[in-house]
Amino acid sequence: PQYLSSQPSPVAKKSEPNRNRNYDPTKIHITDQPMTKANWYRHINWLNVFLIVGIPIYGCVQAIWTPLYWQTAVWAVLYYFATGLGITAGYHRLWAHTSYSATVPLRIFLAAVGGGAVEGSVRWWARDHRAHHRYTDTEKDPYSVRKGLLYSHFGWMVMKQNPKRIGRTDISDLNEDPVVVWQHRHYLKVVLFMGLVFPMLVSGLGWGDWAGGIIYAGILRIFFVQQATFCVNSLAHWLGDQPFDDRNSPRDHVITALVTLGEGYHNFHHEFPSDYRNAIEWHQYDPTKWSIWMWKQMGLAYDLKQFRHNEIEKGRVQQQQKKLDQKRSQLDWGVPLDSLPVMEWDDYVDQAKNGRGLVAIAGVVHDISQFIKDHPGGKAMISSGIGKDATAMFNGGVYMHSNAAHNLLSTMRVGVVRGGCEVEIWKRAQRENKDIQYIKD
Amino acid sequence: PQYLSSQPSPVAKKSEPNRNRNYDPTKIHITDQPMTKANWYRHINWLNVFLIVGIPIYGCVQAIWTPLYWQTAVWAVLYYFATGLGITAGYHRLWAHTSYSATVPLRIFLAAVGGGAVEGSVRWWARDHRAHHRYTDTEKDPYSVRKGLLYSHFGWMVMKQNPKRIGRTDISDLNEDPVVVWQHRHYLKVVLFMGLVFPMLVSGLGWGDWAGGIIYAGILRIFFVQQATFCVNSLAHWLGDQPFDDRNSPRDHVITALVTLGEGYHNFHHEFPSDYRNAIEWHQYDPTKWSIWMWKQMGLAYDLKQFRHNEIEKGRVQQQQKKLDQKRSQLDWGVPLDSLPVMEWDDYVDQAKNGRGLVAIAGVVHDISQFIKDHPGGKAMISSGIGKDATAMFNGGVYMHSNAAHNLLSTMRVGVVRGGCEVEIWKRAQRENKDIQYIKD
Ligand code: HEM
Ligand code: HEM
Ligand SMILES: [Fe+2]
Ligand SMILES: [Fe+2]
Ligand SMILES: [Fe+2]
Ligand SMILES: [Fe+2]
Repeated sequence: PQYLSSQPSPVAKKSEPNRNRNYDPTKIHITDQPMTKANWYRHINWLNVFLIVGIPIYGCVQAIWTPLYWQTAVWAVLYYFATGLGITAGYHRLWAHTSYSATVPLRIFLAAVGGGAVEGSVRWWARDHRAHHRYTDTEKDPYSVRKGLLYSHFGWMVMKQNPKRIGRTDISDLNEDPVVVWQHRHYLKVVLFMGLVFPMLVSGLGWGDWAGGIIYAGILRIFFVQQATFCVNSLAHWLGDQPFDDRNSPRDHVITALVTLGEGYHNFHHEFPSDYRNAIEWHQYDPTKWSIWMWKQMGLAYDLKQFRHNEIEKGRVQQQQKKLDQKRSQLDWGVPLDSLPVMEWDDYVDQAKNGRGLVAIAGVVHDISQFIKDHPGGKAMISSGIGKDATAMFNGGVYMHSNAAHNLLSTMRVGVVRGGCEVEIWKRAQRENKDIQYIKD
Repeated sequence: PQYLSSQPSPVAKKSEPNRNRNYDPTKIHITDQPMTKANWYRHINWLNVFLIVGIPIYGCVQAIWTPLYWQTAVWAVLYYFATGLGITAGYHRLWAHTSYSATVPLRIFLAAVGGGAVEGSVRWWARDHRAHHRYTDTEKDPYSVRKGLLYSHFGWMVMKQNPKRIGRTDISDLNEDPVVVWQHRHYLKVVLFMGLVFPMLVSGLGWGDWAGGIIYAGILRIFFVQQATFCVNSLAHWLGDQPFDDRNSPRDHVITALVTLGEGYHNFHHEFPSDYRNAIEWHQYDPTKWSIWMWKQMGLAYDLKQFRHNEIEKGRVQQQQKKLDQKRSQLDWGVPLDSLPVMEWDDYVDQAKNGRGLVAIAGVVHDISQFIKDHPGGKAMISSGIGKDATAMFNGGVYMHSNAAHNLLSTMRVGVVRGGCEVEIWKRAQRENKDIQYIKD
């Protein structure tokens, strides 16, 4: 049909970010070749290895002989939170999901500190992230947890990726945001300045600690921010509950939330991606949400999007129903009524008289022989129903039985009475003006 | 019908225990008269007040000048557990519910230590307790929590009760147990000996503490055992969850279990009264169950009754289903399909062309105008469905929407397309060999 062709191809175009200018679509890409002893090194993205493994190791080594001033420690932690927020409140909730709108000053701030986390430009990050939401857990998901926890954590950066593989998404709104475009164009400058120079300037000019500024507030802080936010792709798809949907991998867990500035309620987030909150309960940890809310009070953010309580609860109810249905289907609920043999009333009475422990309740005959001695109401009570229509007795005439008793009863079914209960047969017989045979003796 | 008259009257007979020999059914009973300034003292069961309030006060006063030996303290605690078990494992689970069978030595032991708890004879206790189960929360329940927490705790003993009121139950099995009959007949002797004399003898002959034996291991220990077991009637009907049935008052709570030697899983117990367990999980506190199980290993107890896991889980599933249904009914699931106006396909297309944000999905027209700007997949994607049959698009053709999206969509319903989706109309038109009008422009 027309709409299929009018839709863009689901494979990423060359003009989208994340493309290598040297990429030649006519050659077989390395990721389409099996890894061997001879070519393994070509599967590795050595630039990324240097950036996210090499530099941190260098930082650790340097830290051995770089004294740590307490001011630098405080500053590194503060800047850790600021750059982390740049990713969670900026890259993620503002740009990837447009879950709220931000004024230009706030956008500049977020693009700047987000750049300082060294995780790529907004444009590249948001594009991949939208593909992750649209194609969660599939081949087209850039960091699918189905390829392993470590792969989703940083394997997807350390290994080369096939540019054709990642699903495409609409990023026209990002291309219209001058802040995003500027940051993308000047990304290298932004990273160097916000990642290393700026934290060094603060501690250098502030309290004379130039080296500590670059090692602690720069390199090591970058390492921690990266590892923490990578957890949204790994831990958040691996650890915790699935209160809204268990068909895909996203999960809710407080540990992930603590590590990721509140991005740990990820099952909720994949279900309601454009909600500016990730944690919906007041007592859950979501400092990103708190910051956005504060910016709103300060006039810096507006149009905070939020799914209605009604919509959220419907999702929860459906998932609970699904779990309950699974549980129910594993239990024995007795032979279905339509699989039972049909019995004549007289036949039932006869068999009961001849010593079979049969009780008719609600038109169904039950064999209670094995249960008489275990009956919580005593042998006498239950025996008084044998060979009779015990419907009323069982349902409150003598004792209003519990759900448990009804459930147990249904496992003892042996037949259905033709015409239903005694009363129905009686009435029918009267209507037909016949003698009522089964009462004669 | 016959079975109703063949059933015993639900009101207790005079020959049953708990009857006052002086009771004259022809006079108006005091409980049928309103309480006034002039007659209030006649509403009170002074004997019981003396037994469960007076004596403990006397014990407390005596304790002031009675030194407490550590041996006596240990003995009082041990005897507290023994007499408590007499009630929970003996009176309750063995005799009231016949949840297992016991050899004569064990029956004698339980009747003896149970008597030492000073809560009446087995026969009287079990009869009332069976009435409590059969008529839970009704007028005929001897200790209905509906009359107040304090009433169910000990008000029912402190206040006079109308002998006619309490529901009747079958105790023929108890009348056949010689241990029960003997204990009932010699109840006063049993109480005096097991309640006071025996604990005194042990600490008197053991370490010379006659006074402490009677005050601590006797009177005060009785007080604590009584208050603890009374909690089964009060706290267990008031505090906690109802995992199996919430129509009546019984509840599960670990605090009640800790206080009552494991009788705290009372919602379970009322649903499965003849199960020898009250706690079904291994990690829950039920020393009464542990004791019965131990006696079984020792050959003293046998035929331990237990409901199958299947039956227990069915009850749990049903209660969860009930709660879920309640929750579901409070949510807005959109206008039901059969209350929607019917629309022609052409009419839908026209209206969409004229600027109304309408999308047809699965034969239902939705007004998404307000939602376009909030769409998590972007404005372009959702707008591409306007005026078309977006069923396939919405259901995976472009993006496989979540439950949340389906739920939200159903709140936007405005009409049903006559004949269903575009494809159906197309097919029908082809069958009828007509020109397909809506495609012509
Ligand atoms: C037909 C005549 C029956 C009579 C008059 C009768 C009477 C009673 C009474 C008075 C109780 C309350 C005992 C107590 O809680 O201490 C009771 C409990 C119970 N009965 Fe029956 N019963 C009958 C048949 C059955 C049958 C056929 C079943 C088979 C499943 C059954 C299963 C139960 C169960 C599981 C309980 C304990 C749970 C509850 O309180 O509902 N009864 N019955
Ligand atoms: C008719 C054409 C539509 C297309 C092509 C489309 C496409 C998409 C795409 C690609 C996403 C994934 C975005 C992401 O997770 O980052 C998405 C998400 C979503 N869409 Fe649509 N959409 C359409 C219509 C609708 C409509 C009519 C609704 C109305 C309720 C809707 C509600 C949602 C919601 C709630 C989500 C986020 C939750 C989820 O992942 O399912 N969409 N849509
Ligand atoms: Fe995710
Ligand atoms: Fe996201
Ligand atoms: Fe109870
Ligand atoms: Fe009980």
